[in-house]
Amino acid sequence: SSQALKCLSCSPQNYKLFPYIPLLFTLVLVPLLLSETPSLSRGDSDSGLMYVLNFSSSINGLLNCQQFIVPYKAPTDCSAEEFFDISSLSCARCGPNQQRSTTGLSCICITGYQTLTTDKGSITCQLCPSDKPAVTTGGFECIRCPGSLTDEGNCKCPQGSVLGEFTLYSIKGMKYSDPLLNPSYTHHSVIHRIYVSSVVVVWLQVFSNLTACQSLGNMCVMNMHSFSGLSTDACGLFNTIFRSRAALISPRVHSKHFGHSFSRRNNLPWLYYGDEPGLASRVLQTDPVPIGFSFRGRNKLLAAVYNVRGEFLRWEPVGGSNLQLCPDTTTKQAAAFSFGTAYQQSCDLSVAKLLDTHPEPLFYDVFMDLGGGENSKLLPLPTLVYNQQYNGRFINQESMKNWYLSRRMFLVDTLSGREKSMSSPPKIIRVASSVKIRWLVPRTQEGQVFPPLMTVTYRDVPIDTQAITFSVEYEMDQNEARAKTDTALGVMGGVAVLYSLLKTVSWKRRIASPLIDVETMLKFLLFYAGDLANVFFAVTVGTGLYWLIFYKAQQFVSVLLPLPAQEEQFVTYIGCAFALKAIQFLHKLILQVSVDIFFIDWERPRSKATTGEPKRDPSPVSIWRTYFVANEWNEIQTIRKISPTFQIMAVLFFLEVLGFSNLALRDPWPTLERSAQVYTPPYSLMLRYGLAATLWLCIGVLQVIFFTVFHEHFVEDKIRQFVDLCSISNISVLLLSHRCFGYYIHGRSVHGHADTNMEEMNNNLKRESESLCGQRGLLPNTEIQTFQVSLTNRLRSQYERIREPLNRRSRPSRLMDASSANQFEQNARAYHTMNHFLGSIIDHAHSDMDYIVKDKLMFERVIGMEFLEPSEKSIFYNDEAHSFSDVLFYGNEATLLIFDTLFFCVVDLGSQSFVLAAVLTYVQQMIFRLIRNALGRRNLVNKTLVDDRFLI
Amino acid sequence: SSQALKCLSCSPQNYKLFPYIPLLFTLVLVPLLLSETPSLSRGDSDSGLMYVLNFSSSINGLLNCQQFIVPYKAPTDCSAEEFFDISSLSCARCGPNQQRSTTGLSCICITGYQTLTTDKGSITCQLCPSDKPAVTTGGFECIRCPGSLTDEGNCKCPQGSVLGEFTLYSIKGMKYSDPLLNPSYTHHSVIHRIYVSSVVVVWLQVFSNLTACQSLGNMCVMNMHSFSGLSTDACGLFNTIFRSRAALISPRVHSKHFGHSFSRRNNLPWLYYGDEPGLASRVLQTDPVPIGFSFRGRNKLLAAVYNVRGEFLRWEPVGGSNLQLCPDTTTKQAAAFSFGTAYQQSCDLSVAKLLDTHPEPLFYDVFMDLGGGENSKLLPLPTLVYNQQYNGRFINQESMKNWYLSRRMFLVDTLSGREKSMSSPPKIIRVASSVKIRWLVPRTQEGQVFPPLMTVTYRDVPIDTQAITFSVEYEMDQNEARAKTDTALGVMGGVAVLYSLLKTVSWKRRIASPLIDVETMLKFLLFYAGDLANVFFAVTVGTGLYWLIFYKAQQFVSVLLPLPAQEEQFVTYIGCAFALKAIQFLHKLILQVSVDIFFIDWERPRSKATTGEPKRDPSPVSIWRTYFVANEWNEIQTIRKISPTFQIMAVLFFLEVLGFSNLALRDPWPTLERSAQVYTPPYSLMLRYGLAATLWLCIGVLQVIFFTVFHEHFVEDKIRQFVDLCSISNISVLLLSHRCFGYYIHGRSVHGHADTNMEEMNNNLKRESESLCGQRGLLPNTEIQTFQVSLTNRLRSQYERIREPLNRRSRPSRLMDASSANQFEQNARAYHTMNHFLGSIIDHAHSDMDYIVKDKLMFERVIGMEFLEPSEKSIFYNDEAHSFSDVLFYGNEATLLIFDTLFFCVVDLGSQSFVLAAVLTYVQQMIFRLIRNALGRRNLVNKTLVDDRFLI
Repeated sequence: SSQALKCLSCSPQNYKLFPYIPLLFTLVLVPLLLSETPSLSRGDSDSGLMYVLNFSSSINGLLNCQQFIVPYKAPTDCSAEEFFDISSLSCARCGPNQQRSTTGLSCICITGYQTLTTDKGSITCQLCPSDKPAVTTGGFECIRCPGSLTDEGNCKCPQGSVLGEFTLYSIKGMKYSDPLLNPSYTHHSVIHRIYVSSVVVVWLQVFSNLTACQSLGNMCVMNMHSFSGLSTDACGLFNTIFRSRAALISPRVHSKHFGHSFSRRNNLPWLYYGDEPGLASRVLQTDPVPIGFSFRGRNKLLAAVYNVRGEFLRWEPVGGSNLQLCPDTTTKQAAAFSFGTAYQQSCDLSVAKLLDTHPEPLFYDVFMDLGGGENSKLLPLPTLVYNQQYNGRFINQESMKNWYLSRRMFLVDTLSGREKSMSSPPKIIRVASSVKIRWLVPRTQEGQVFPPLMTVTYRDVPIDTQAITFSVEYEMDQNEARAKTDTALGVMGGVAVLYSLLKTVSWKRRIASPLIDVETMLKFLLFYAGDLANVFFAVTVGTGLYWLIFYKAQQFVSVLLPLPAQEEQFVTYIGCAFALKAIQFLHKLILQVSVDIFFIDWERPRSKATTGEPKRDPSPVSIWRTYFVANEWNEIQTIRKISPTFQIMAVLFFLEVLGFSNLALRDPWPTLERSAQVYTPPYSLMLRYGLAATLWLCIGVLQVIFFTVFHEHFVEDKIRQFVDLCSISNISVLLLSHRCFGYYIHGRSVHGHADTNMEEMNNNLKRESESLCGQRGLLPNTEIQTFQVSLTNRLRSQYERIREPLNRRSRPSRLMDASSANQFEQNARAYHTMNHFLGSIIDHAHSDMDYIVKDKLMFERVIGMEFLEPSEKSIFYNDEAHSFSDVLFYGNEATLLIFDTLFFCVVDLGSQSFVLAAVLTYVQQMIFRLIRNALGRRNLVNKTLVDDRFLI
Repeated sequence: SSQALKCLSCSPQNYKLFPYIPLLFTLVLVPLLLSETPSLSRGDSDSGLMYVLNFSSSINGLLNCQQFIVPYKAPTDCSAEEFFDISSLSCARCGPNQQRSTTGLSCICITGYQTLTTDKGSITCQLCPSDKPAVTTGGFECIRCPGSLTDEGNCKCPQGSVLGEFTLYSIKGMKYSDPLLNPSYTHHSVIHRIYVSSVVVVWLQVFSNLTACQSLGNMCVMNMHSFSGLSTDACGLFNTIFRSRAALISPRVHSKHFGHSFSRRNNLPWLYYGDEPGLASRVLQTDPVPIGFSFRGRNKLLAAVYNVRGEFLRWEPVGGSNLQLCPDTTTKQAAAFSFGTAYQQSCDLSVAKLLDTHPEPLFYDVFMDLGGGENSKLLPLPTLVYNQQYNGRFINQESMKNWYLSRRMFLVDTLSGREKSMSSPPKIIRVASSVKIRWLVPRTQEGQVFPPLMTVTYRDVPIDTQAITFSVEYEMDQNEARAKTDTALGVMGGVAVLYSLLKTVSWKRRIASPLIDVETMLKFLLFYAGDLANVFFAVTVGTGLYWLIFYKAQQFVSVLLPLPAQEEQFVTYIGCAFALKAIQFLHKLILQVSVDIFFIDWERPRSKATTGEPKRDPSPVSIWRTYFVANEWNEIQTIRKISPTFQIMAVLFFLEVLGFSNLALRDPWPTLERSAQVYTPPYSLMLRYGLAATLWLCIGVLQVIFFTVFHEHFVEDKIRQFVDLCSISNISVLLLSHRCFGYYIHGRSVHGHADTNMEEMNNNLKRESESLCGQRGLLPNTEIQTFQVSLTNRLRSQYERIREPLNRRSRPSRLMDASSANQFEQNARAYHTMNHFLGSIIDHAHSDMDYIVKDKLMFERVIGMEFLEPSEKSIFYNDEAHSFSDVLFYGNEATLLIFDTLFFCVVDLGSQSFVLAAVLTYVQQMIFRLIRNALGRRNLVNKTLVDDRFLI
């Protein structure tokens, strides 16, 4: 009865891949052989392989091939007449007159029956004769008892006695006592031995066949499932046996489904899914697991554990440290099986420790527990052995259609690297250096997932430290999402082209140039950069926010984050948005610091024409009001609708203090507080961006609302104050942002004079607050002081002619001082001329350069373009919205806010540090504010002749 | 030879503390009894306890009691004639004709000698007779061999044979074959048994005595070392035996040293240090460990491990998971033994897991490895069992002089809680729920430490989750440091009193009030608050910096951080510093927003006295220059010598981005980068404070240097600009911070007129830059424009008389408008009067209120007090340092910087978050800036009559 040897001894040599596998045979066989020896006396002599090929116990057909689902059964679940079949992990009925053994893994004869072994690897039971009603402890012999029988049918010992059972063989020609005193003796050259029957022998006789095939399978697993197609290695042998067995099954059924499968009682472990092309994708991506998955639940994985001899040890829930070799706290390790949490754990383990903790390899068949209480079902997890070779090819490192899915894995094999004996240290050990569980989720309905794939990478290591990785990934097909993003980008990018064209047309009109030249093209590109930046920004923020909301808020699985590799495109989009926005920002900055500005002083010298007096030289009009207005204008250059520093601090407060940054972790929990005890998954770039951008925009918008609604009405409105100041100081401001387009702030004092002492100023203010004087508007009886102006070409030409000496001033003068002094006087003359000229224009004194005042159409406001061309008369559009702030930071809050947002996010994506992003954003804002202030101030000095010592 | 029972069976009942200990006896005895049974046939019958008392094998005297140091020996270190004595953990010689066994823990007879047991628990060996030259496998019998002998003196089996050895007893009146076929039988009511001699019996006979006493000791350990003084429990029994043994040792030697000790070959384990008063502090704090400790090294702890039966298992290096039950990564667990790293690890472990991993208790004798290569020495670690009871008192929870130090500990005892049998689950388990290793370092020389103390707290837990803590603490006597701190505080606090008195005297003089009243006292306290705050701040920053530098930079152990409990006083000091500084800051704020200010306009109306014309009403002097100056003054209220936001950002950058915050961790490594893989110790409040305050101050001082040295010289100096503006605008400023003390900025234009048009202004500026006109100083041909002024009482009284109508203005007017208008005119008159009065004072027009200009003495500058009292003439002190900025934020940078530092640190100490501290500091600065601006502006409006609409 050397069935144990049969499955094993088919081909005990020639293993190409792993040099020490042959030794393993010896090592595994040693215990078997030792316990085997006594039974030689009653063995048979079938030749090895043939036996297995003819071994055809009842074939119950294939399991549910579509789903590969098996009911969960533990040995204790089997009824009294059933035993637990470790090949199929199910309960099977015992034969006649048999019952389950105490381990539950085999059948034994019922009371009063003796055990006989058969060739088929199973036992039969035979009734004991009535004169020998008891059986020995082993159950193989019927004996007579000196006393009574136990319930189990064995002899019962009287009080104080110990049971001793011996089987003696009659030995001819020897004294009876001799063999007992002498250890052994030889008779007719025939060696006789005494043996004590034990359960080990019985177990061997019954189960040797089953565990032998399991053991062969384990050897194949230790060889990383690799085979060459020849039956000269463990896997080849396994496949040869398997194919012979499979031929007995209907070929039709066999080929139609997933090739290899495991049927009941065939004794071969399930190692391969089969070699049909495309089988892997069918297994992995066709049918979702038939239960709904919720993020609140846990992945329940179960493993059937076998030892190297093929014995079933136990069911183990996967978790704790059975697949995770790296030591860590229990809570952190448990995070790997919290559904939806991307998990990765790596460490270096010393081989000494591995040798200590894994003296012999254990084999795991991993299943997913589908739940169901009493009748819980199990789904086998397909395994991909990364190093698996097929005729020398690493097929599992190729594309999915070539994959060979398999079953059963081990973590540490310290056994097959030993040479000569079990006690010698291994020369080499094989470790599952990387175990990855990948969950692929279909984009269908809620809560569905495909069967997860376990990818195992083995590595042969010499005696040294070994890096171990265990990771869990969740993946979803992102093509659809990407396509949607690209569609949105395409459509919005198209709209942006139209909008930029419109802007270019408006710009052409405002500079009064009909030609389409290179500058026009460049301008179009600059406008387009800004609009495209907005498109990219909108799409990326929308996407990020979408992920943030749907990923973090879902109860059942409906969306999964893109993997880090899939985020690259997204990051590229953000980069584009930032680069384009930066171009737009710099463009606006340059425009702002080159705007034309002039302060029109309405104050006329006081010449109190007392009767009879001759006209005298009037006292000069004080320049201090102009200084005051210029100083204030200089100060409002860089005010914004938000407080930029408060913005940074608030964002930092939410992210780092309140813990919003935890929302960007790759797990589906929307919790802000994380204990240091629990596992912290890596960050998702997408979520980080979505979170930071959204938070920045939200706080920014709230600030804008606060400042424009509350602060400016109840505390102070710098823009309004400036307009008021113009009015009080009797000074108008003309701003020309384009050649023929600009803004006009009407500041003519309603009191006629502003250059006066404190009493009169206070009186004036008092009279105005009591409405005792006229209104401040440009037109009589109106309040409107601010206008957009479209100038005629003639007016602009005249303006430039007067300005001409001023332009010269800005050039570096290399002439002598006298010329400089001369220049100085010219400037003053030009200033006065300009003052007089612009004043007379406003006063309608030049009929050929007259203007009309009208309202802008709603549509004109929306698209930011004027329909009427100022051919004969200039046009002043009423503008109560103070749109002159467009030449300040104040009127461009949207651009600045988006630029800051993108700057913050780009720094964060690069450094993964919100604090660094905040600090650099602050520095960036500071630098640009300084630049804007310095250039704006220089422009102001150049254009208005106000000495820069007064712009403090 | 039932020696095994002797040490055990002394008193097998009545254990008060732990209900299941008695059961343990049974359970431990079961295996012993079972293997014992056969030897009954040749046993003796000494009564239990007496044997042990008379047991007096060779006493080699006490070990090196002073140091308690033993050489490190492993079983493999003993020579061939020696065995490893597990009581003394040393090698001992075997008897005659004996050699070491393969385990090395006992002696066996040499080849050809049979083993005989003696009463003394040792073996003797006797030569086998020549007709029976071989011994059985057990060694107890001499036999004759059928073949040749092996090298070990056993029978050698021929090829194919198996050795069988049986000892048969002759049984009278029975057929020879009967006992073999029948399990047992009764004869003369005497029960006979067949047994196979085995090494187990030999082992029992040789070692039973040794392990029995060890086993008794372990039971005492499981009882948490508690005893009642009666010999009715395990520890009581142990002590009774010990005392009896100790009586045999010279009483003088015994009492002189540390009481209990362990001597060679006495078979009793070392459990107690002794009960002399003060022994604990002598053991723990008298002699330092005789090797130097470096922070670069590691603590090497070794443990001798025993099982519950008292058998020595192995030497284990402490680390990994043998004392740390909480699972964690290897690198993090190793941090516990990196010298100097404060370590704490806690977790909840399920009892199921404990039961699984600790099926039976292991006992640890922990030693420190003192190194020395081949002859390395071991220092036993004293253990303090927190729950140990002595006659019902928890002595180890009392003060150190009552402590009972002990040896040997266990981690999990799942054994003694089992009822009835080993297979039944335990009702209760006992766990070392807290293990703490405390290192006490003397303040002597470098690298010395006292023997570390292990404190173990056991807890009895029902079947539930159990919280486990393992921690390592490093402690140093901090009394000296604290005394130094207190001395520094005392001395500096005394100096601060003097300085505050001086300030109070100066203040009295400046308000020209000689009386000492309640206000004076209050003022003194306010000054003292500020000075004391500085003292506290200096001491705390100094201490923090001291710790930061000396703790982080030391190579050998010289200073250790205070424990968290010892930091309380330090935190209190910081709290005091902050509270006092806040008082000073608010005091200064209130003074600043109530300062007296007046703008003196020197401009006189232009009355071109053309010949022959009558005197005409001159055109009014424009108020706009005053508006301009007031506006600028309003704007410089809150400028500072640093950029507060940049300060926050820079500190945050260093702490959070560059990782300076890692310097505040409780370990001695001055590294900025920490991998997430390694253990992160908790933060030290002291280091956090030292780090944050130092960083804040350093960056602040660097900023001050940058702004005062570089920025103000090359970019812009707002204070200088203001003084220039005064000069250009022909306006002087008088600031009165006290009743009779203040500042004067001389702004009289050198051109006579400033109220002019742009050409003239530019001409004036040009002439001045070409030095074509006079200098700006108050005295002719001087440049000095800024003065500190000490006014006479008369001048001040006159000033107040003129101001009187203005003061009324600030009161809420409930009268009708007419009165308000009237008030308005009065104000204007008062303004003109004041303008005229102050102008004439400066022009020396009032001989009774004249002034002199002089330099301040160096000493006057240093102590901030004037020696001369202005009785007849007011005194104008030249002040080129612009000290008028003392009434602005600008001149109080030190106070503001220290206040911000303390605010930042206090928030951080409370929240342990630098980011939150930064955000709140920003908000604090913003709020105080807004308050200062609003109140300062209101004050300006009230004092100068400038309408607040011009202060924008």
